[in-house]
Amino acid sequence: MSTQGARTRGKMNNAFGPMDRAKLSGTIRALVERRDRLLGPAYRLFYRNPIEVSRGSGVILYDSEGRDYLDAYNNVVSVGHAHPRVVDAVSRQMSILCTHTRYIQHGILSYAEQLLGTFTGRIGATGHAMFTCTGSEANDLALRIAEHYTGNLGVIVTAEAYHGNSHRTAGISPALGENSPLGQWVRTIPTPDSYRITEDCLPQWFADQVALQIADLKRHGQGVAAFIVDSLFSSDGIYSEPTTLLGPAIEVVRKEGGVFIADEVQCGFARTGDAMWGYQRHGVDPDIVTMGKPMGNGFPVAGITVAPEVVACFGHDIRYFNTFGGNTVAIAAAKATLDVIQAEGLLQNSRIVGAELKKQLQVLTGRYECVGDVRGQGLYLGVEIVQSRHTKTPDTRRATAIVNGLRERRVLISATGVQANILKIRPPLVFSLSDVDRLMEELRAVIAEVEAAG
Amino acid sequence: MSTQGARTRGKMNNAFGPMDRAKLSGTIRALVERRDRLLGPAYRLFYRNPIEVSRGSGVILYDSEGRDYLDAYNNVVSVGHAHPRVVDAVSRQMSILCTHTRYIQHGILSYAEQLLGTFTGRIGATGHAMFTCTGSEANDLALRIAEHYTGNLGVIVTAEAYHGNSHRTAGISPALGENSPLGQWVRTIPTPDSYRITEDCLPQWFADQVALQIADLKRHGQGVAAFIVDSLFSSDGIYSEPTTLLGPAIEVVRKEGGVFIADEVQCGFARTGDAMWGYQRHGVDPDIVTMGKPMGNGFPVAGITVAPEVVACFGHDIRYFNTFGGNTVAIAAAKATLDVIQAEGLLQNSRIVGAELKKQLQVLTGRYECVGDVRGQGLYLGVEIVQSRHTKTPDTRRATAIVNGLRERRVLISATGVQANILKIRPPLVFSLSDVDRLMEELRAVIAEVEAAG
Repeated sequence: MSTQGARTRGKMNNAFGPMDRAKLSGTIRALVERRDRLLGPAYRLFYRNPIEVSRGSGVILYDSEGRDYLDAYNNVVSVGHAHPRVVDAVSRQMSILCTHTRYIQHGILSYAEQLLGTFTGRIGATGHAMFTCTGSEANDLALRIAEHYTGNLGVIVTAEAYHGNSHRTAGISPALGENSPLGQWVRTIPTPDSYRITEDCLPQWFADQVALQIADLKRHGQGVAAFIVDSLFSSDGIYSEPTTLLGPAIEVVRKEGGVFIADEVQCGFARTGDAMWGYQRHGVDPDIVTMGKPMGNGFPVAGITVAPEVVACFGHDIRYFNTFGGNTVAIAAAKATLDVIQAEGLLQNSRIVGAELKKQLQVLTGRYECVGDVRGQGLYLGVEIVQSRHTKTPDTRRATAIVNGLRERRVLISATGVQANILKIRPPLVFSLSDVDRLMEELRAVIAEVEAAG
Repeated sequence: MSTQGARTRGKMNNAFGPMDRAKLSGTIRALVERRDRLLGPAYRLFYRNPIEVSRGSGVILYDSEGRDYLDAYNNVVSVGHAHPRVVDAVSRQMSILCTHTRYIQHGILSYAEQLLGTFTGRIGATGHAMFTCTGSEANDLALRIAEHYTGNLGVIVTAEAYHGNSHRTAGISPALGENSPLGQWVRTIPTPDSYRITEDCLPQWFADQVALQIADLKRHGQGVAAFIVDSLFSSDGIYSEPTTLLGPAIEVVRKEGGVFIADEVQCGFARTGDAMWGYQRHGVDPDIVTMGKPMGNGFPVAGITVAPEVVACFGHDIRYFNTFGGNTVAIAAAKATLDVIQAEGLLQNSRIVGAELKKQLQVLTGRYECVGDVRGQGLYLGVEIVQSRHTKTPDTRRATAIVNGLRERRVLISATGVQANILKIRPPLVFSLSDVDRLMEELRAVIAEVEAAG
């Protein structure tokens, strides 16, 4: 049996750590201790000074003392905290019926049709929708289908990918850190780091990396089942450009009999402002698309869409049932959320507000030595913090100071990337231009402080 | 790539099959075809004549034409369809805040305390609660923790066990049928068939089977990580006796360094009427307990409770985060459900009503040749249908006819066991004595018809 302490503590960006405990107020410290006792050691909190939340509305979270925080982090509540249309849909459906998919229901069919209608390519034409409860389950199911379809076991992911917390998806998630084992037939390719690798070279270089790993799988007697990518590379550090990146790599995978899975848990549902689905920015046609987090504005609902030929044998040979997946209430939440995205024009809002925010962030690169790069699209933006713009050396310490400095100024963001030195800005899609002003004002102040502190 | 049709269709008890399509009414057939087109081939419906449900209340489901069905099947809506206290709790919390566990919240702590308070042994004394969205995720997490704790990979399950739909849990679920591969280090032991094996012999025989499989794992260079059991053996065929069964087998597993996982997705939350948790009937002390289906009365919430020493290293080395798992609304649903179980005395109701139902079912074994055995505890009962009580040969055809005959009489049950010849009766816990009367009246009529038909 393994001995605690022999390994370094499990990696998590922007986590409250044991050393931070001494600085807490008495009330918060007591809550943290009660939490440790009841929930155990696997749970982590955000920030050196964790927040006790009590309610939310739109882009604002309130703590237990009524202080308001600008939420520039939570993409799950995509249409805003406690959106009345989603609240009403869930409340109404809960009072009528909450049951599973082994009875015929209209709601799931209408929603599946509406959802599939947002796709292009093979999935848009004749695809199927299948429902799970979490993005992890969606990716896990996608891998089961890919294995069954291809007869192969190999999976290729990026160096700092995160695709889920199930045994199989944790096994394709290097972001969970060295203590969490990758699966035997999982191969990683380097992050497509557009800040350090010349953009023109990236697509060919990326495809070559994929080919190398497939060759290694074959050298070990195994083929490639799937290449799975979050097209914003959220946990790798947010790389939105170039959009010519994925095409050549996918071509390599298909030539070797593998499928392409677009993991849209982060970049789907209008997040990028450019298109409903992140992969569409790359002009590619996935075999399976997985989705999760923002799908029901916080209600546990997720799923996949899939080209019919890819799931035909799996469906015939094995079947799939998920007790809560696609139940009547989950579908009501998902439908209300998609309705709001479409009715309130949140794709456009993400594009317009995201572009303004990105423009203002880019100004910082000229002003502060530690602001190395601004990346991302729509309302998913990354700001890479470095020791110097010349060496581009990641500066984890300063990035952490900025994230925690913003938290003290009641603006919530986090950090991403292997060194946790990239600010992750990912607000609800209803973020407005005046929210941009508040965020930028505090961010400028914090960066100035952090640079001045040296 | 595998070719459709080369394999037999994926196994599922009480499933609507392609051959049943010709007999459907025009409206239902059109819905089934639309469903196939939108949801694809992996989805299955119940009954030869599927039901289109529109609302539910207590133990009654209504179809789209307003006909009422007595629900003697759905354990998920444990406190009854659309229970107002759960509806209110979810509605209220949705309108206040729906967010994740990386902020401090009171609700999850109070609920964890209340939940842990229902346990005895090490978990009751100093255990932790961790939250997921589905029972599959709970079992999957339990296996990850068991592997990390023991350093072994072997898992022992019963011959017809079902523990989930994720890659890892499908891999320990022989009930999914021969087309769904078991994991490399998974070993099965025979069902503890108390109808065919003398009850006095069962505990030693069962422990010997476990020892044999651990020896086989070791012979292949691998140790046992976990022995995982649903103590009602729901998918094996519902075996509630003897309650001396599990003790000796668990002792064998512990001696070899493995942990015992009690899968309470089916038998937990007062289902057996004897105790809050099914394993407690066996007087054993699990290392990990997993729970799901009835936890939030249909709201997607599930989880594990675990002895602290078992999760210490996993928590330190790896961490666990589940975006929706234990979110504020999931916890509100779970708390309201547990409150109702406790406030409405549903443990007692399950014991009293279940005992009366079992007594009336047992009368049938004296009256009909095809009724071989009645098993189960509380409101989880099984009736084994056989060709003759002398040979005890399973009679799948008659069991299927009974399930579908009851459906035509608007009483919902299903079938279980490797041959799907065991009637599965598992109503919401609010089932009353007059519900027993309605169920029994229809069941007697259907069995008489089926026996008369030969």
